[in-house]
Amino acid sequence: MRMYDLIRKKRDGGILSRDEIAYMVKEYTRGDIPDYQMSAMMMAIYFKGMDREETLSLTMEMAKSGEMLDLSLIKGTKVDKHSTGGVGDKTSLALAPMVAACGVPVAKMSGRGLGHTGGTIDKLESIPGFSTALETEQFISQVNEIGIAIMGQTKELAPADKKLYALRDVTATVDNLSLIASSIMSKKLASGADAIILDVKTGSGAFMKKEEDAFALAREMVRIGRGAGRYTAAVISDMDQPLGYAIGNALEVKEAIDTLQGKGPDDFVELCLTLGAEMVMAGGKARTTEEARALLHKKIEDGSALNKLAEFVKAQGGDENYIYEPDRFSIAPLKKEVRAKESGWLSHIDCEEAGLCSLILGGGRENKESVIDLGVGLVLAKKKGDQVEEGDVLATLYGRDEEKLSEAAAKYEAACHVGAESVIRLPFIKGMIRE
Amino acid sequence: MRMYDLIRKKRDGGILSRDEIAYMVKEYTRGDIPDYQMSAMMMAIYFKGMDREETLSLTMEMAKSGEMLDLSLIKGTKVDKHSTGGVGDKTSLALAPMVAACGVPVAKMSGRGLGHTGGTIDKLESIPGFSTALETEQFISQVNEIGIAIMGQTKELAPADKKLYALRDVTATVDNLSLIASSIMSKKLASGADAIILDVKTGSGAFMKKEEDAFALAREMVRIGRGAGRYTAAVISDMDQPLGYAIGNALEVKEAIDTLQGKGPDDFVELCLTLGAEMVMAGGKARTTEEARALLHKKIEDGSALNKLAEFVKAQGGDENYIYEPDRFSIAPLKKEVRAKESGWLSHIDCEEAGLCSLILGGGRENKESVIDLGVGLVLAKKKGDQVEEGDVLATLYGRDEEKLSEAAAKYEAACHVGAESVIRLPFIKGMIRE
Repeated sequence: MRMYDLIRKKRDGGILSRDEIAYMVKEYTRGDIPDYQMSAMMMAIYFKGMDREETLSLTMEMAKSGEMLDLSLIKGTKVDKHSTGGVGDKTSLALAPMVAACGVPVAKMSGRGLGHTGGTIDKLESIPGFSTALETEQFISQVNEIGIAIMGQTKELAPADKKLYALRDVTATVDNLSLIASSIMSKKLASGADAIILDVKTGSGAFMKKEEDAFALAREMVRIGRGAGRYTAAVISDMDQPLGYAIGNALEVKEAIDTLQGKGPDDFVELCLTLGAEMVMAGGKARTTEEARALLHKKIEDGSALNKLAEFVKAQGGDENYIYEPDRFSIAPLKKEVRAKESGWLSHIDCEEAGLCSLILGGGRENKESVIDLGVGLVLAKKKGDQVEEGDVLATLYGRDEEKLSEAAAKYEAACHVGAESVIRLPFIKGMIRE
Repeated sequence: MRMYDLIRKKRDGGILSRDEIAYMVKEYTRGDIPDYQMSAMMMAIYFKGMDREETLSLTMEMAKSGEMLDLSLIKGTKVDKHSTGGVGDKTSLALAPMVAACGVPVAKMSGRGLGHTGGTIDKLESIPGFSTALETEQFISQVNEIGIAIMGQTKELAPADKKLYALRDVTATVDNLSLIASSIMSKKLASGADAIILDVKTGSGAFMKKEEDAFALAREMVRIGRGAGRYTAAVISDMDQPLGYAIGNALEVKEAIDTLQGKGPDDFVELCLTLGAEMVMAGGKARTTEEARALLHKKIEDGSALNKLAEFVKAQGGDENYIYEPDRFSIAPLKKEVRAKESGWLSHIDCEEAGLCSLILGGGRENKESVIDLGVGLVLAKKKGDQVEEGDVLATLYGRDEEKLSEAAAKYEAACHVGAESVIRLPFIKGMIRE
């Protein structure tokens, strides 16, 4: 088999066989196929696409390129959740304890974030003492004991994907649905969960700006998951404005705690219940959405979801008092309010720009070496569709540097638009695919 | 400027500016743009193409990537000829002296061939003593004195093209008209001629199998040449069967000599007159095709074209007696005839297969290190459209090894097809583009 022939076949619109894809992934990971041939192949795939079989083969081969986690020692159906990412996305922080409280084991391997705010691990580290440096045995026994554990990603999952993604990133070959889907799913498959629930975001703050693209990606990933023998479902949710009100690490943990106390923002609660219901059903703890949502509501109302979070934090070395007394969180001391310059309706919040405000204040990473400030960020006061009067607070920014606060405030002001006409609020959940 | 942005622009169907192409070619030649980005760009160009301006810019930048030959010390309009290559293509051997005899200076830089038979230099080296190892000064003064010189390619012309072609060759990005045209033309522009006459072949033995592709390539190259300020014209000629009757180095020199003695094969004579007329007109020695062809005929009839060849051979150290007494050429001693198994009309000769016969006999190079046998080859007795009787000789093979002769004979027999119906002979010259 020669890579040249495979490039030519794909260039001419041919279908690569499972064996051909296996050869390509193995030899490329090993370094025996050079980058310059693989990048030509990726560009040919960009133009000619891959069918379902090819996409599944590529995903499976990338998943198998490194260690495949074995979670079989954990009792019950392990359900994993993956989000395509967005601004103010603290979903795992509330969702994982809610679902664990329902009896579905949550064994999550998580990473640090590169973006507006940190990843789930960074956010949890705003609780003093909390650590995700678990050994695999400890991780498994903790899930068996209390139903929940989150571990930092130590093993290199799907190294082929890592190498290929880095190449695609510098050769303008990222934007292909099959390649995006196989990249995400290869890591999920290697992580060992029995069922995968996907949270695919769409809108100005999402990777997929257009709703139809988000649906297409969701469909592709669900197909791959089912093709690989894992129960898979996807929820398509709005990311045209920040999720909830809080953006920033500690601020987001506090909002997740509010949510587990029954005081969460409408959109965020709706997302947690929708994803949670899918996870509870996938985990066999409910048969219908109705039943699953009722169970999740009960776990919030009776305090067991919040207790589960505290139990989890304690198990991993964190101070659980922060969960019951969230005022303990150390938030940056300087405050600045952004106020409306005119009356009307808030018609638009540029979501990426809002995320950049948190980055300016120090809450995110510009590159892998950046040190993250867990106490900075912003809390929105108004969201899209809200009526505002001139002088109303639109958001409050928290920082440690007046200059950066002013810069971020100006950016947030520019990101918002107040119009003279009222705005129709579109549904937050855009759809669901359980194929 | 970043290569990433250029790849993305082209991928999305954008037009690269002259500056962008200059940046890309310079940085790539220097090694500052990696192969993996350039191969992605080549695949994007494969799918999205380049317009005239982009193609011209790419050609000019590649031409300028190394030394540009300066032929200004040669008096008169220097006319160069380039063939896209084929089987039995001994055109330069007859054409160059014909044109030089008309007073048009021929200053040709030539290479050794990789293929069925050698290149022009290999063929000339079947004349004892002949050498193309000239210094540039010697080359220029020889052209000024006798009107003709052929020099081996010592300088690296258009190194960017060389590097890019090697990359395209292993990434399945050769087959794009703009890229093919710019590759050929960059070397021609760097070679310093004032006018360029192109011989674009089409048919089973040519790079461009389809006539429409050959016309498209010819048009593209003529546009580039004119865009670069050089008078350029192209002749599209048939390569669906070998050119003339002889295939093999010394055998082809003999056929070229026959032609200069007025005894050449119809198709080869027609090609030499057609290309020669374009060159004579480009060189300002005739105003119409009629006038140019009459002049060329005269130079053959009065012996001055043959004398020019002898003069040229002598000037470069060769024994000119071989030109006047071509029986001196040392042809391989073993002979094998391929005969028709049935009567009818010769309807087809697979041109590439016929070329491979010469390669089997030792007349061509399989790789750069191969030693070439100048005395082997084959001489056709019948060409397409000829009537044959069972037992008629179709071709005579010359070799040094019975086994290879048998192998080549079997191949040649399989390459020919004799049908029961007479065959229409299509015109040998398919067209001309002087745009």
